[in-house]
Amino acid sequence: ARPKVGYLYSGNKPINLISEKIHGITVNDIKSIPVVVDEQTTLYDALVILFLEDVGSIFVLSEGYLAGAVSRKDFLRNIMGGTDVNKVPVGLIMTRMPNIIMTYPNETVLEAAIKIIDHEIDSLPVVEKVKVDKKEYYKVVGKVSKTNITRVFVELGINN
Amino acid sequence: ARPKVGYLYSGNKPINLISEKIHGITVNDIKSIPVVVDEQTTLYDALVILFLEDVGSIFVLSEGYLAGAVSRKDFLRNIMGGTDVNKVPVGLIMTRMPNIIMTYPNETVLEAAIKIIDHEIDSLPVVEKVKVDKKEYYKVVGKVSKTNITRVFVELGINN
Repeated sequence: ARPKVGYLYSGNKPINLISEKIHGITVNDIKSIPVVVDEQTTLYDALVILFLEDVGSIFVLSEGYLAGAVSRKDFLRNIMGGTDVNKVPVGLIMTRMPNIIMTYPNETVLEAAIKIIDHEIDSLPVVEKVKVDKKEYYKVVGKVSKTNITRVFVELGINN
Repeated sequence: ARPKVGYLYSGNKPINLISEKIHGITVNDIKSIPVVVDEQTTLYDALVILFLEDVGSIFVLSEGYLAGAVSRKDFLRNIMGGTDVNKVPVGLIMTRMPNIIMTYPNETVLEAAIKIIDHEIDSLPVVEKVKVDKKEYYKVVGKVSKTNITRVFVELGINN
């Protein structure tokens, strides 16, 4: 006889299939390519990248590892405040570690969405932890934003 | 005998309950309060409102009806381009009707989410159509953004 494995079915109707999906989709399944700049980049150059890539936020690296994040709101606030965009580097205006909320490839999309809502932010860097000389650093391997979550919502709705 | 009404159950497990929810939640159930300004408002005054209300976009009214929308991106682009924020009104830089994608109170959240993804926008004005002298106008009664959709996703996941 065939072994009894797999999902429970009631007739042809999957039980709580969407629930399984919501809890089964990982950050790795839906992450986007992150836009990153070095902390020495001027606000002007970072703004050009922001527009060219058409993203709402950029992750900032120091020696290749996550150091902070800057958003359209940060740029607007600083420009309105008179900051010289041609001289000031993003490292000076960014929200910096350890105040960056992060997610990991194997976290569920639901966990990432909860972080986004709880902390009132637009996106999370997807990171991998690296140990160098007993200190922890974070490599940015992706990005999860409200756009990714909205896309998952649409796919769940259309396919179910 | 009791009449056969209500949902189908298989034991205690609701069949496709989340699917029903995804397709049942309306824009009216989850809409936020919209931030609006008149088209004569200067960019500077609109920016102050943008920061005070901490929103990503503002809907612009002409004689009380929807005329357009301005986002953080629009403000950034214009400031970088040298626009005088103290003199120029939002009506001059806004994305204007009929290029505004709208949603209605009785549309489903899924339909609204599809519009957001398809048109690559952050939020939709929730409107009610009004006829004045045989011309159609739109009253802004709410706002649905990726934040609202992400919140629905979280609630579906946590409660199921």
